[in-house]
Amino acid sequence: MDAARRRAHLSFGPDGVSRADRMLPEETAVALSFNGSTQAVMMATPADLVDFAYGFALTEGIARPDEVETVEALETPRGIDLQVWVAPAAAERLAQRRRTMAGPVGCGLCGIDSIDEALRPVARVAPSGFRMTPAQVHQAAEGLRAGQALHDLTRAAHCAALWQPEGIALLREDVGRHNALDKLIGAAVRGGASGDCALVLTCRVSVDMVQKAAAFGAPVLIALSAPTAHAADLAEEAGITLIAGVRPGRFDVYSHSDRLTEVTHAR
Amino acid sequence: MDAARRRAHLSFGPDGVSRADRMLPEETAVALSFNGSTQAVMMATPADLVDFAYGFALTEGIARPDEVETVEALETPRGIDLQVWVAPAAAERLAQRRRTMAGPVGCGLCGIDSIDEALRPVARVAPSGFRMTPAQVHQAAEGLRAGQALHDLTRAAHCAALWQPEGIALLREDVGRHNALDKLIGAAVRGGASGDCALVLTCRVSVDMVQKAAAFGAPVLIALSAPTAHAADLAEEAGITLIAGVRPGRFDVYSHSDRLTEVTHAR
Repeated sequence: MDAARRRAHLSFGPDGVSRADRMLPEETAVALSFNGSTQAVMMATPADLVDFAYGFALTEGIARPDEVETVEALETPRGIDLQVWVAPAAAERLAQRRRTMAGPVGCGLCGIDSIDEALRPVARVAPSGFRMTPAQVHQAAEGLRAGQALHDLTRAAHCAALWQPEGIALLREDVGRHNALDKLIGAAVRGGASGDCALVLTCRVSVDMVQKAAAFGAPVLIALSAPTAHAADLAEEAGITLIAGVRPGRFDVYSHSDRLTEVTHAR
Repeated sequence: MDAARRRAHLSFGPDGVSRADRMLPEETAVALSFNGSTQAVMMATPADLVDFAYGFALTEGIARPDEVETVEALETPRGIDLQVWVAPAAAERLAQRRRTMAGPVGCGLCGIDSIDEALRPVARVAPSGFRMTPAQVHQAAEGLRAGQALHDLTRAAHCAALWQPEGIALLREDVGRHNALDKLIGAAVRGGASGDCALVLTCRVSVDMVQKAAAFGAPVLIALSAPTAHAADLAEEAGITLIAGVRPGRFDVYSHSDRLTEVTHAR
Protein backbone atom coordinates (compact mmCIF):
# COMPACT_ATOMS: atom_id res chain seq x y z
CA MET A 1 0.00 0.00 0.00
CA ASP A 2 1.42 3.36 -1.00
CA ALA A 3 1.53 6.51 1.13
CA ALA A 4 -0.33 8.51 -1.54
CA ARG A 5 -2.78 7.84 -4.37
CA ARG A 6 -3.79 9.78 -7.49
CA ARG A 7 -7.46 10.73 -7.47
CA ALA A 8 -9.66 12.51 -9.99
CA HIS A 9 -11.71 15.58 -9.16
CA LEU A 10 -13.48 18.48 -10.84
CA SER A 11 -11.64 21.76 -10.66
CA PHE A 12 -13.92 24.84 -10.44
CA GLY A 13 -12.07 28.02 -11.45
CA PRO A 14 -12.58 31.41 -13.06
CA ASP A 15 -12.60 29.77 -16.50
CA GLY A 16 -15.23 27.19 -15.60
CA VAL A 17 -15.05 23.53 -14.72
CA SER A 18 -12.40 21.06 -15.81
CA ARG A 19 -11.46 17.50 -15.02
CA ALA A 20 -8.23 17.18 -13.08
CA ASP A 21 -6.47 14.88 -10.70
CA ARG A 22 -3.99 15.18 -7.90
CA MET A 23 -2.16 13.06 -5.34
CA LEU A 24 -3.90 12.63 -1.99
CA PRO A 25 -2.31 11.07 1.09
CA GLU A 26 -3.53 7.57 1.91
CA GLU A 27 -5.25 6.98 5.24
CA THR A 28 -5.64 3.46 6.60
CA ALA A 29 -6.93 1.94 9.81
CA VAL A 30 -3.94 0.56 11.72
CA ALA A 31 -4.76 -1.63 14.71
CA LEU A 32 -1.91 -1.66 17.24
CA SER A 33 -1.96 -4.94 19.13
CA PHE A 34 0.40 -5.84 21.97
CA ASN A 35 0.86 -9.54 22.74
CA GLY A 36 -2.37 -10.30 20.93
CA SER A 37 -4.64 -7.67 22.47
CA THR A 38 -5.65 -4.55 20.51
CA GLN A 39 -4.66 -1.36 22.29
CA ALA A 40 -5.68 1.21 19.68
CA VAL A 41 -6.91 1.69 16.13
CA MET A 42 -5.30 4.73 14.53
CA MET A 43 -6.04 6.20 11.11
CA ALA A 44 -2.55 6.53 9.64
CA THR A 45 -0.49 6.70 6.48
CA PRO A 46 0.55 3.11 5.65
CA ALA A 47 4.32 3.65 5.78
CA ASP A 48 7.09 3.19 8.34
CA LEU A 49 4.93 0.83 10.38
CA VAL A 50 7.76 -0.79 12.37
CA ASP A 51 8.92 2.68 13.41
CA PHE A 52 5.30 3.41 14.37
CA ALA A 53 5.15 0.35 16.61
CA TYR A 54 8.38 1.21 18.46
CA GLY A 55 7.45 4.87 18.82
CA PHE A 56 3.87 4.29 19.97
CA ALA A 57 5.04 1.67 22.48
CA LEU A 58 7.59 4.08 23.96
CA THR A 59 5.58 7.31 24.00
CA GLU A 60 2.42 5.67 25.35
CA GLY A 61 4.42 4.04 28.15
CA ILE A 62 3.79 0.47 26.97
CA ALA A 63 7.31 -0.81 26.26
CA ARG A 64 10.85 0.49 25.97
CA PRO A 65 12.68 -0.26 22.70
CA ASP A 66 14.68 -3.07 24.32
CA GLU A 67 11.40 -4.67 25.42
CA VAL A 68 9.97 -4.88 21.88
CA GLU A 69 10.59 -8.43 20.63
CA THR A 70 8.86 -8.64 17.24
CA VAL A 71 6.71 -6.41 15.04
CA GLU A 72 4.62 -7.75 12.17
CA ALA A 73 2.35 -5.75 9.90
CA LEU A 74 -0.48 -7.84 8.45
CA GLU A 75 -2.41 -6.27 5.59
CA THR A 76 -6.13 -7.06 5.72
CA PRO A 77 -8.83 -5.91 3.29
CA ARG A 78 -10.00 -3.30 5.80
CA GLY A 79 -6.70 -2.11 7.24
CA ILE A 80 -3.41 -3.12 8.78
CA ASP A 81 -3.06 -5.30 11.84
CA LEU A 82 0.19 -4.20 13.49
CA GLN A 83 1.09 -7.04 15.83
CA VAL A 84 3.69 -6.15 18.45
CA TRP A 85 5.11 -8.69 20.87
CA VAL A 86 6.78 -7.27 23.96
CA ALA A 87 8.82 -8.76 26.80
CA PRO A 88 6.91 -10.35 29.72
CA ALA A 89 7.63 -7.43 32.10
CA ALA A 90 6.07 -4.93 29.67
CA ALA A 91 3.12 -7.21 28.98
CA GLU A 92 2.49 -7.53 32.72
CA ARG A 93 2.62 -3.72 33.22
CA LEU A 94 0.10 -3.26 30.41
CA ALA A 95 -2.21 -5.94 31.83
CA GLN A 96 -1.97 -4.29 35.26
CA ARG A 97 -2.80 -0.88 33.78
CA ARG A 98 -5.84 -2.36 32.07
CA ARG A 99 -7.04 -4.05 35.26
CA THR A 100 -6.87 -0.82 37.27
CA MET A 101 -8.90 1.16 34.76
CA ALA A 102 -12.30 2.14 36.07
CA GLY A 103 -14.52 1.50 33.06
CA PRO A 104 -14.74 -1.09 30.35
CA VAL A 105 -13.59 1.18 27.54
CA GLY A 106 -11.89 4.49 26.96
CA CYS A 107 -10.35 6.55 24.23
CA GLY A 108 -9.27 9.97 23.04
CA LEU A 109 -5.92 9.48 24.69
CA CYS A 110 -5.14 5.91 23.71
CA GLY A 111 -7.15 3.64 25.93
CA ILE A 112 -6.96 5.89 28.95
CA ASP A 113 -10.35 6.55 30.41
CA SER A 114 -9.81 8.90 33.31
CA ILE A 115 -8.57 12.45 33.43
CA ASP A 116 -5.84 11.56 35.92
CA GLU A 117 -4.57 8.82 33.68
CA ALA A 118 -4.83 11.12 30.64
CA LEU A 119 -2.79 13.78 32.41
CA ARG A 120 -0.27 11.32 33.79
CA PRO A 121 2.88 12.96 35.22
CA VAL A 122 5.08 14.01 32.34
CA ALA A 123 8.61 12.58 32.15
CA ARG A 124 11.30 15.12 33.02
CA VAL A 125 14.04 15.35 30.41
CA ALA A 126 17.50 14.49 31.75
CA PRO A 127 19.95 17.43 32.02
CA SER A 128 22.36 17.69 29.10
CA GLY A 129 24.71 20.18 27.55
CA PHE A 130 22.61 20.36 24.37
CA ARG A 131 22.33 23.97 23.13
CA MET A 132 21.19 25.67 19.92
CA THR A 133 21.91 29.02 18.36
CA PRO A 134 19.07 31.03 16.81
CA ALA A 135 20.62 30.34 13.40
CA GLN A 136 20.44 26.59 14.08
CA VAL A 137 16.74 26.89 14.98
CA HIS A 138 16.09 28.42 11.57
CA GLN A 139 18.28 25.78 9.90
CA ALA A 140 16.26 23.03 11.60
CA ALA A 141 12.97 24.57 10.41
CA GLU A 142 14.34 24.93 6.89
CA GLY A 143 15.56 21.33 6.93
CA LEU A 144 12.10 20.18 7.96
CA ARG A 145 10.44 22.14 5.16
CA ALA A 146 12.94 20.82 2.59
CA GLY A 147 12.36 17.17 3.49
CA GLN A 148 8.59 16.90 3.25
CA ALA A 149 8.28 14.61 0.25
CA LEU A 150 4.73 13.39 1.01
CA HIS A 151 3.55 16.91 1.79
CA ASP A 152 5.11 18.29 -1.38
CA LEU A 153 3.23 15.59 -3.28
CA THR A 154 -0.13 15.99 -1.54
CA ARG A 155 -0.03 19.29 0.40
CA ALA A 156 -1.82 17.39 3.17
CA ALA A 157 0.63 15.62 5.46
CA HIS A 158 2.27 16.40 8.77
CA CYS A 159 5.98 16.01 9.31
CA ALA A 160 8.27 15.41 12.27
CA ALA A 161 12.06 15.57 12.02
CA LEU A 162 15.04 15.00 14.29
CA TRP A 163 17.72 17.66 14.18
CA GLN A 164 21.28 17.28 15.42
CA PRO A 165 24.13 19.78 14.99
CA GLU A 166 25.04 18.00 11.73
CA GLY A 167 21.54 18.72 10.35
CA ILE A 168 18.26 16.81 9.92
CA ALA A 169 19.07 13.19 10.81
CA LEU A 170 15.62 11.63 10.42
CA LEU A 171 12.24 12.66 9.05
CA ARG A 172 8.82 10.97 9.02
CA GLU A 173 5.46 12.01 7.56
CA ASP A 174 1.85 10.99 8.21
CA VAL A 175 -1.68 12.32 7.76
CA GLY A 176 -1.81 12.42 11.58
CA ARG A 177 0.57 14.63 13.53
CA HIS A 178 0.76 12.19 16.47
CA ASN A 179 1.55 9.35 14.10
CA ALA A 180 4.31 11.36 12.39
CA LEU A 181 5.94 12.03 15.77
CA ASP A 182 5.57 8.42 16.93
CA LYS A 183 7.12 7.17 13.67
CA LEU A 184 10.01 9.60 14.02
CA ILE A 185 10.67 8.62 17.64
CA GLY A 186 10.44 4.94 16.70
CA ALA A 187 12.96 5.42 13.91
CA ALA A 188 15.22 7.33 16.31
CA VAL A 189 15.27 4.68 19.03
CA ARG A 190 15.70 1.88 16.48
CA GLY A 191 18.71 3.75 15.08
CA GLY A 192 20.13 4.37 18.53
CA ALA A 193 19.82 8.18 18.30
CA SER A 194 20.87 9.94 21.47
CA GLY A 195 18.60 12.38 23.29
CA ASP A 196 20.91 15.26 22.34
CA CYS A 197 18.66 16.54 19.60
CA ALA A 198 15.72 18.74 18.74
CA LEU A 199 12.40 17.44 17.49
CA VAL A 200 10.97 19.65 14.74
CA LEU A 201 7.26 19.65 13.88
CA THR A 202 5.18 21.23 11.14
CA CYS A 203 2.11 21.32 13.35
CA ARG A 204 0.75 23.02 16.41
CA VAL A 205 1.88 21.76 19.81
CA SER A 206 -0.77 20.23 22.03
CA VAL A 207 -0.33 18.50 25.39
CA ASP A 208 0.11 15.04 23.90
CA MET A 209 2.92 16.18 21.59
CA VAL A 210 4.85 17.44 24.64
CA GLN A 211 4.13 14.17 26.49
CA LYS A 212 5.53 12.17 23.57
CA ALA A 213 8.63 14.39 23.24
CA ALA A 214 9.26 14.04 26.98
CA ALA A 215 8.86 10.24 26.86
CA PHE A 216 11.58 10.20 24.19
CA GLY A 217 13.75 12.61 26.18
CA ALA A 218 14.21 15.44 23.64
CA PRO A 219 15.57 18.59 25.30
CA VAL A 220 14.24 20.88 22.54
CA LEU A 221 10.89 20.85 20.70
CA ILE A 222 10.52 23.19 17.72
CA ALA A 223 7.18 23.80 15.98
CA LEU A 224 6.37 25.96 13.00
CA SER A 225 2.95 26.70 14.49
CA ALA A 226 1.76 27.79 17.94
CA PRO A 227 1.35 25.79 21.15
CA THR A 228 -1.69 25.59 23.40
CA ALA A 229 -1.34 27.30 26.79
CA HIS A 230 -1.42 23.94 28.58
CA ALA A 231 1.26 22.51 26.28
CA ALA A 232 3.56 25.48 27.02
CA ASP A 233 3.10 24.92 30.77
CA LEU A 234 3.79 21.19 30.36
CA ALA A 235 7.01 21.85 28.42
CA GLU A 236 8.18 24.03 31.33
CA GLU A 237 7.40 21.18 33.75
CA ALA A 238 9.11 18.58 31.55
CA GLY A 239 12.32 20.58 31.28
CA ILE A 240 11.84 20.97 27.52
CA THR A 241 12.78 24.11 25.57
CA LEU A 242 9.63 24.84 23.57
CA ILE A 243 10.24 26.95 20.46
CA ALA A 244 7.21 27.78 18.31
CA GLY A 245 5.96 30.14 15.65
CA VAL A 246 9.14 29.84 13.57
CA ARG A 247 8.89 32.29 10.65
CA PRO A 248 11.48 34.13 8.55
CA GLY A 249 13.96 35.73 10.97
CA ARG A 250 11.80 35.16 14.04
CA PHE A 251 10.62 32.59 16.58
CA ASP A 252 9.17 32.49 20.09
CA VAL A 253 10.53 30.56 23.09
CA TYR A 254 8.02 29.52 25.76
CA SER A 255 10.16 27.55 28.22
CA HIS A 256 13.77 26.86 29.25
CA SER A 257 15.24 29.52 26.97
CA ASP A 258 18.68 28.94 28.56
CA ARG A 259 19.34 26.35 25.85
CA LEU A 260 19.45 29.17 23.27
CA THR A 261 23.03 30.44 22.92
CA GLU A 262 25.06 32.95 20.93
CA VAL A 263 22.19 35.38 20.78
CA THR A 264 23.27 38.23 18.58
CA HIS A 265 21.80 41.67 18.88
CA ALA A 266 21.76 43.14 15.40
CA ARG A 267 22.65 46.84 15.27
CA MET B 1 -12.31 28.64 32.43
CA ASP B 2 -11.65 30.79 29.36
CA ALA B 3 -11.01 29.53 25.83
CA ALA B 4 -7.68 31.39 25.64
CA ARG B 5 -5.02 32.65 28.04
CA ARG B 6 -2.27 35.28 27.77
CA ARG B 7 1.20 33.79 28.17
CA ALA B 8 4.65 35.34 28.26
CA HIS B 9 7.47 34.24 25.95
CA LEU B 10 10.78 35.44 24.60
CA SER B 11 10.69 36.72 21.04
CA PHE B 12 13.88 36.06 19.03
CA GLY B 13 14.11 38.35 16.01
CA PRO B 14 16.60 40.15 13.77
CA ASP B 15 17.05 42.84 16.42
CA GLY B 16 17.76 40.40 19.25
CA VAL B 17 15.64 39.06 22.08
CA SER B 18 12.72 40.75 23.75
CA ARG B 19 10.06 39.83 26.27
CA ALA B 20 6.61 39.51 24.77
CA ASP B 21 3.31 37.81 25.36
CA ARG B 22 0.46 36.52 23.28
CA MET B 23 -2.86 34.75 23.62
CA LEU B 24 -2.73 30.95 23.38
CA PRO B 25 -5.77 28.68 23.12
CA GLU B 26 -6.62 26.78 26.29
CA GLU B 27 -6.56 22.98 26.20
CA THR B 28 -8.28 20.97 28.93
CA ALA B 29 -8.97 17.30 29.56
CA VAL B 30 -12.71 16.72 29.07
CA ALA B 31 -14.01 13.33 30.21
CA LEU B 32 -17.21 12.40 28.38
CA SER B 33 -19.29 10.13 30.60
CA PHE B 34 -22.57 8.54 29.59
CA ASN B 35 -24.88 7.40 32.40
CA GLY B 36 -21.93 7.41 34.79
CA SER B 37 -19.40 5.51 32.69
CA THR B 38 -16.51 7.33 31.01
CA GLN B 39 -16.49 6.81 27.26
CA ALA B 40 -13.61 9.09 26.27
CA VAL B 41 -11.19 11.73 27.52
CA MET B 42 -10.63 14.42 24.90
CA MET B 43 -8.21 17.35 25.09
CA ALA B 44 -10.46 20.26 24.14
CA THR B 45 -11.03 23.98 24.43
CA PRO B 46 -13.23 24.50 27.51
CA ALA B 47 -16.16 26.19 25.75
CA ASP B 48 -19.52 25.12 24.32
CA LEU B 49 -19.48 21.94 26.37
CA VAL B 50 -23.21 21.19 26.15
CA ASP B 51 -22.95 21.43 22.35
CA PHE B 52 -19.95 19.09 22.57
CA ALA B 53 -21.95 16.50 24.50
CA TYR B 54 -24.86 16.51 22.02
CA GLY B 55 -22.55 16.44 18.99
CA PHE B 56 -20.23 13.72 20.29
CA ALA B 57 -23.22 11.57 21.31
CA LEU B 58 -24.73 11.87 17.82
CA THR B 59 -21.62 11.52 15.66
CA GLU B 60 -20.19 8.61 17.68
CA GLY B 61 -23.51 6.77 17.43
CA ILE B 62 -24.21 6.86 21.17
CA ALA B 63 -27.46 8.83 21.37
CA ARG B 64 -29.72 10.94 19.15
CA PRO B 65 -30.47 14.47 20.37
CA ASP B 66 -33.94 13.45 21.58
CA GLU B 67 -32.31 10.71 23.69
CA VAL B 68 -30.05 13.12 25.60
CA GLU B 69 -31.74 13.84 28.93
CA THR B 70 -29.28 16.00 30.91
CA VAL B 71 -25.76 17.34 30.44
CA GLU B 72 -23.69 18.66 33.34
CA ALA B 73 -20.13 20.00 33.13
CA LEU B 74 -18.26 19.61 36.45
CA GLU B 75 -15.00 21.53 36.71
CA THR B 76 -12.33 19.60 38.59
CA PRO B 77 -8.77 20.73 39.36
CA ARG B 78 -7.45 18.48 36.56
CA GLY B 79 -10.13 18.92 33.92
CA ILE B 80 -13.82 18.87 33.15
CA ASP B 81 -16.11 15.96 33.87
CA LEU B 82 -18.85 16.17 31.24
CA GLN B 83 -21.66 14.01 32.61
CA VAL B 84 -24.27 13.07 30.02
CA TRP B 85 -27.41 11.12 30.90
CA VAL B 86 -29.18 9.44 28.01
CA ALA B 87 -32.47 7.60 27.64
CA PRO B 88 -32.61 3.89 28.63
CA ALA B 89 -32.66 2.68 25.00
CA ALA B 90 -29.43 4.56 24.17
CA ALA B 91 -27.79 3.41 27.40
CA GLU B 92 -28.65 -0.20 26.57
CA ARG B 93 -27.22 0.12 23.02
CA LEU B 94 -23.98 1.53 24.45
CA ALA B 95 -23.75 -1.25 27.04
CA GLN B 96 -24.35 -3.83 24.32
CA ARG B 97 -21.63 -2.28 22.13
CA ARG B 98 -19.20 -2.42 25.03
CA ARG B 99 -20.04 -6.05 25.77
CA THR B 100 -19.38 -7.13 22.19
CA MET B 101 -15.98 -5.49 22.02
CA ALA B 102 -13.15 -7.98 21.80
CA GLY B 103 -10.61 -6.47 24.16
CA PRO B 104 -10.70 -4.69 27.49
CA VAL B 105 -9.67 -1.30 26.12
CA GLY B 106 -9.39 0.58 22.87
CA CYS B 107 -8.82 4.05 21.54
CA GLY B 108 -7.79 6.19 18.61
CA LEU B 109 -11.33 6.15 17.35
CA CYS B 110 -13.25 6.71 20.57
CA GLY B 111 -13.41 3.45 22.42
CA ILE B 112 -13.54 1.31 19.32
CA ASP B 113 -10.92 -1.38 19.35
CA SER B 114 -11.27 -3.23 16.12
CA ILE B 115 -10.75 -2.13 12.55
CA ASP B 116 -14.23 -3.24 11.58
CA GLU B 117 -15.75 -1.19 14.34
CA ALA B 118 -13.50 1.76 13.47
CA LEU B 119 -14.58 1.59 9.85
CA ARG B 120 -18.23 1.07 10.65
CA PRO B 121 -20.57 1.55 7.67
CA VAL B 122 -20.97 5.24 7.03
CA ALA B 123 -24.47 6.73 7.18
CA ARG B 124 -25.86 7.65 3.75
CA VAL B 125 -27.15 11.20 3.58
CA ALA B 126 -30.85 11.44 2.69
CA PRO B 127 -31.65 12.84 -0.77
CA SER B 128 -32.54 16.52 -0.77
CA GLY B 129 -32.85 19.40 -3.17
CA PHE B 130 -29.97 21.25 -1.51
CA ARG B 131 -27.73 22.87 -4.13
CA MET B 132 -24.94 25.46 -4.10
CA THR B 133 -23.51 27.78 -6.72
CA PRO B 134 -19.74 28.21 -6.98
CA ALA B 135 -20.21 31.76 -5.69
CA GLN B 136 -21.95 30.42 -2.61
CA VAL B 137 -19.07 28.00 -1.96
CA HIS B 138 -16.70 30.97 -1.86
CA GLN B 139 -19.15 32.95 0.31
CA ALA B 140 -19.28 30.05 2.78
CA ALA B 141 -15.48 29.88 2.95
CA GLU B 142 -15.24 33.64 3.43
CA GLY B 143 -17.91 33.50 6.15
CA LEU B 144 -15.90 30.82 7.94
CA ARG B 145 -12.72 32.89 7.77
CA ALA B 146 -14.51 36.02 9.00
CA GLY B 147 -15.99 34.32 12.05
CA GLN B 148 -12.90 32.77 13.63
CA ALA B 149 -12.68 34.84 16.82
CA LEU B 150 -10.53 32.35 18.78
CA HIS B 151 -8.24 31.78 15.82
CA ASP B 152 -7.85 35.51 15.22
CA LEU B 153 -6.86 35.83 18.89
CA THR B 154 -4.49 32.85 19.02
CA ARG B 155 -3.73 31.82 15.43
CA ALA B 156 -4.01 28.24 16.69
CA ALA B 157 -7.61 27.02 16.62
CA HIS B 158 -9.72 25.00 14.22
CA CYS B 159 -13.15 26.13 13.14
CA ALA B 160 -16.31 24.46 11.84
CA ALA B 161 -19.30 26.42 10.54
CA LEU B 162 -22.77 25.66 9.25
CA TRP B 163 -23.76 27.47 6.08
CA GLN B 164 -27.29 27.93 4.77
CA PRO B 165 -28.37 30.04 1.81
CA GLU B 166 -28.84 32.98 4.21
CA GLY B 167 -25.17 32.74 5.22
CA ILE B 168 -23.18 31.28 8.14
CA ALA B 169 -25.77 30.21 10.71
CA LEU B 170 -23.48 28.69 13.37
CA LEU B 171 -19.75 28.55 14.05
CA ARG B 172 -17.69 26.75 16.70
CA GLU B 173 -13.93 26.70 17.41
CA ASP B 174 -11.63 24.31 19.29
CA VAL B 175 -7.96 23.36 19.46
CA GLY B 176 -9.06 19.99 18.08
CA ARG B 177 -10.69 19.75 14.67
CA HIS B 178 -12.94 16.82 15.67
CA ASN B 179 -14.09 18.73 18.73
CA ALA B 180 -14.88 21.83 16.66
CA LEU B 181 -17.06 19.73 14.34
CA ASP B 182 -18.78 17.89 17.21
CA LYS B 183 -19.54 21.21 18.93
CA LEU B 184 -20.95 22.65 15.71
CA ILE B 185 -23.13 19.61 15.08
CA GLY B 186 -24.29 19.65 18.71
CA ALA B 187 -25.23 23.33 18.43
CA ALA B 188 -27.06 22.60 15.17
CA VAL B 189 -29.18 19.75 16.50
CA ARG B 190 -29.96 21.66 19.71
CA GLY B 191 -31.14 24.60 17.58
CA GLY B 192 -33.18 22.33 15.33
CA ALA B 193 -31.13 23.09 12.19
CA SER B 194 -32.25 21.10 9.17
CA GLY B 195 -29.89 18.95 7.16
CA ASP B 196 -30.20 21.34 4.19
CA CYS B 197 -26.85 22.96 4.82
CA ALA B 198 -23.14 22.77 4.16
CA LEU B 199 -20.54 22.13 6.86
CA VAL B 200 -17.46 24.29 6.37
CA LEU B 201 -14.09 23.37 7.92
CA THR B 202 -10.74 25.12 8.20
CA CYS B 203 -8.91 21.81 8.36
CA ARG B 204 -8.03 18.84 6.23
CA VAL B 205 -10.67 16.15 5.75
CA SER B 206 -9.90 12.74 7.20
CA VAL B 207 -12.16 9.69 7.37
CA ASP B 208 -13.57 10.56 10.78
CA MET B 209 -14.63 14.05 9.65
CA VAL B 210 -16.68 12.48 6.83
CA GLN B 211 -18.16 9.93 9.28
CA LYS B 212 -19.26 12.76 11.58
CA ALA B 213 -20.71 14.86 8.74
CA ALA B 214 -22.64 11.80 7.52
CA ALA B 215 -23.98 11.03 11.01
CA PHE B 216 -25.36 14.59 11.09
CA GLY B 217 -26.72 14.27 7.54
CA ALA B 218 -25.00 17.20 5.83
CA PRO B 219 -25.25 16.94 2.03
CA VAL B 220 -22.20 19.17 1.45
CA LEU B 221 -18.84 19.27 3.23
CA ILE B 222 -16.48 22.13 2.37
CA ALA B 223 -12.86 22.26 3.58
CA LEU B 224 -10.23 24.90 3.01
CA SER B 225 -7.55 22.19 2.97
CA ALA B 226 -7.22 18.83 1.20
CA PRO B 227 -8.84 15.47 1.94
CA THR B 228 -7.17 12.11 2.33
CA ALA B 229 -7.82 9.62 -0.48
CA HIS B 230 -9.86 7.38 1.84
CA ALA B 231 -11.97 10.36 3.01
CA ALA B 232 -12.77 11.29 -0.60
CA ASP B 233 -13.90 7.70 -1.28
CA LEU B 234 -16.02 7.68 1.88
CA ALA B 235 -17.74 10.95 0.92
CA GLU B 236 -18.70 9.33 -2.39
CA GLU B 237 -20.13 6.35 -0.50
CA ALA B 238 -21.99 8.57 1.98
CA GLY B 239 -23.65 10.62 -0.75
CA ILE B 240 -21.83 13.76 0.40
CA THR B 241 -20.55 16.45 -1.96
CA LEU B 242 -16.95 16.92 -0.84
CA ILE B 243 -15.47 20.29 -1.79
CA ALA B 244 -11.87 20.96 -0.75
CA GLY B 245 -8.90 23.16 -1.43
CA VAL B 246 -10.96 26.35 -1.50
CA ARG B 247 -8.70 29.24 -2.52
CA PRO B 248 -9.31 32.57 -4.26
CA GLY B 249 -11.44 31.88 -7.34
CA ARG B 250 -10.94 28.10 -7.20
CA PHE B 251 -11.95 24.89 -5.46
CA ASP B 252 -11.96 21.15 -6.13
CA VAL B 253 -14.95 18.79 -5.96
CA TYR B 254 -14.24 15.13 -5.15
CA SER B 255 -17.72 13.58 -5.03
CA HIS B 256 -21.37 14.20 -5.99
CA SER B 257 -20.62 17.33 -7.99
CA ASP B 258 -24.26 17.39 -9.19
CA ARG B 259 -25.07 19.58 -6.19
CA LEU B 260 -23.04 22.41 -7.79
CA THR B 261 -25.34 24.55 -9.94
CA GLU B 262 -25.22 27.66 -12.09
CA VAL B 263 -21.71 26.91 -13.22
CA THR B 264 -20.56 29.85 -15.31
CA HIS B 265 -17.91 29.48 -17.97
CA ALA B 266 -16.04 32.76 -18.08
CA ARG B 267 -15.04 33.84 -21.61
